[in-house]
Amino acid sequence: MTTLHARTRGPVHVVGTGLLGTSAALALRARGVETTLADPSPTAAALARDLGAGRLRQPDDAPPVLVVVASPPDVTAAVVAEQLACWPDAVVTDVASVKLTVLSELRRLLADGAHGLAGAAGERALARYVGSHPLAGRERSGAVAARGTLFAGRPWVLCPTPSSSSTAVAAVRDLADDLGGVPVVMEAGDHDEAVALVSHVPQVAASLVAARLREAPEPAVELAGQGLRDVTRIAESDPALWVQILGANAGPVAAVLRDLRADLDAVLAALEQLADAGEDAQDRHDAAANSPGALAAVARLIADGGAGRARVPGKHGAPPTAYAVVTALVPDAPGELARLLHDVGAAGVNLEDLRIEHSPGQPVGLAEVSVLPAARTVLEAALRDLGWALLD
Amino acid sequence: MTTLHARTRGPVHVVGTGLLGTSAALALRARGVETTLADPSPTAAALARDLGAGRLRQPDDAPPVLVVVASPPDVTAAVVAEQLACWPDAVVTDVASVKLTVLSELRRLLADGAHGLAGAAGERALARYVGSHPLAGRERSGAVAARGTLFAGRPWVLCPTPSSSSTAVAAVRDLADDLGGVPVVMEAGDHDEAVALVSHVPQVAASLVAARLREAPEPAVELAGQGLRDVTRIAESDPALWVQILGANAGPVAAVLRDLRADLDAVLAALEQLADAGEDAQDRHDAAANSPGALAAVARLIADGGAGRARVPGKHGAPPTAYAVVTALVPDAPGELARLLHDVGAAGVNLEDLRIEHSPGQPVGLAEVSVLPAARTVLEAALRDLGWALLD
Repeated sequence: MTTLHARTRGPVHVVGTGLLGTSAALALRARGVETTLADPSPTAAALARDLGAGRLRQPDDAPPVLVVVASPPDVTAAVVAEQLACWPDAVVTDVASVKLTVLSELRRLLADGAHGLAGAAGERALARYVGSHPLAGRERSGAVAARGTLFAGRPWVLCPTPSSSSTAVAAVRDLADDLGGVPVVMEAGDHDEAVALVSHVPQVAASLVAARLREAPEPAVELAGQGLRDVTRIAESDPALWVQILGANAGPVAAVLRDLRADLDAVLAALEQLADAGEDAQDRHDAAANSPGALAAVARLIADGGAGRARVPGKHGAPPTAYAVVTALVPDAPGELARLLHDVGAAGVNLEDLRIEHSPGQPVGLAEVSVLPAARTVLEAALRDLGWALLD
Repeated sequence: MTTLHARTRGPVHVVGTGLLGTSAALALRARGVETTLADPSPTAAALARDLGAGRLRQPDDAPPVLVVVASPPDVTAAVVAEQLACWPDAVVTDVASVKLTVLSELRRLLADGAHGLAGAAGERALARYVGSHPLAGRERSGAVAARGTLFAGRPWVLCPTPSSSSTAVAAVRDLADDLGGVPVVMEAGDHDEAVALVSHVPQVAASLVAARLREAPEPAVELAGQGLRDVTRIAESDPALWVQILGANAGPVAAVLRDLRADLDAVLAALEQLADAGEDAQDRHDAAANSPGALAAVARLIADGGAGRARVPGKHGAPPTAYAVVTALVPDAPGELARLLHDVGAAGVNLEDLRIEHSPGQPVGLAEVSVLPAARTVLEAALRDLGWALLD
């Protein structure tokens, strides 16, 4: 944020002024890169302009050097083809969250000679296209939610094809760099399988669990704790967008869900076997003894889940680190959490992560401060000296 | 924590000195209530004693007024029966996370005349028993993870039966109050259905998603974001404990999982239908047009998930409030987050929640400060005046 230097050369034309397009344009403008905007909705384009994302493209503007297509996934390929035809010298990228569908459809459009780009013209057009996917988003959508820092520190996947020119790849990599993203090169198919696993299936799972709560009795949902809150947080997402994403990545998502369902079936069969034995513990023990697989199937799932969870990277993309957690009791009053964190900083300790535990009905909270293990003893002593009640 | 007054009368005998039993004993000791300890493992009992949870019970000790059984779920009923027989005047409760199985097994044991408690003696014993379940826990287990504040602000479910005496119910309610819990009365069966929904099924879902990551390619897991981290956090739980919990609540958990699987099947069928249409968008559009149910099924799940998520209570057990979120850019250096929160407190604004967004590879973090909507404008102005970069 301290430098305005940019490797990206403008003008950059941003097609689609929703959350991602407007955020990219804002970030480019902040770095002094000229941007022009377009959107099928004139209101949406004007809103992005008013937010400072650039100006609306005029007929006699200089042609763009780079085009960023940030349209809804289901029209992305058509817009990419159109832009390739419209600007014969521009590099074109898109930011759709599914890549193989876009690429396949683009190839079909070019093979069909869309926009006069048949044969050799189509080949030349394809050389100027590099699909990409910044893994950035928010619960809110639209230009009003946009911010130039949206991509900061997030992976930005580039999916060049064998047809892509090195110039085109470099231009899209520069864009990712300029916007603060971390460029990662993957094949489109590998990308789609990866996001099915780490993004699309977790979304489905969160929705599946949350959907069960719709008709739950009020006393039941009042027993909810932090576990349920965490599991269901992303279930707040926009249905219209997710229909497009899941629809466009249907194959890879279905493949992961089939494996997940096989695990679910195994656990469900085990639980039904145990439940059929009735409420009596002796019967259940007999059932478990007669079918040792029942309890083992449950244990296996929980253990497999733990092993998979251990692979999820922590902060800053580093391998999961076993941070030491120092838990302090914090009165629920203005400034108290700040005072705690001030005291953490004054102890010379860097806070790696912070969780606040919600305490229903209680005017006190628990702050779980994660620090590097080596810093734990120092921090605990410092906080205790200052009168903090620590819980470990 | 500021008063040592307790309504609970000692001695309280705690049977089972793991996380819950030791935490309860520590909290009672802090309030000046006499506690005695027992555990099948002499080492575990001695450890709890050394941590200050009370003393080991001696043969000539005065009999307990209240017994808290904090054994593993699968032996809880047997231990409750034994304690009822051992102390003919004591109220007995347990803290197992499943209630109907424990109650049914206890009734069977008494009907069978276990410990000489047949007929009228069994009836009198049952009058002294009130099962309970404090919804408190940690990722870690055992006495070393215990803390007297474990139950603070958490719901504590009481499941009296028609046989329970009012004296027994009052004693267990006093215990919950003294330990800072929020007493909630429910029938055992209702309790078990509720925790299946808000605790046990979310655990299974988190494990199902996390288990898919075990054999994922490294580049795929490196794309993981906060969504995956949240969905899979509780997948770190202890397999041995969860086998017991899920096994003891097999019926209600299986019932919810069956409904969840029906939703999963519908979404999977829809995705397979879309995937079979191939990668070509036109084909997919045709498939969607020919079977409008496919996309609708996906949209319905996401929308249902959003509706269910909206019912999850927020902080302090209050109905979910739409907090205003102010997002600030925070340099990743000691004291910076503290400085931000100090400035929030100095603005006279109470922080309702705080999320730190992890930024892989980036020396900067995003702090999302939730405040009451009315406080938003004041806070934004105050922070901007102090030079904070806000992202909205």
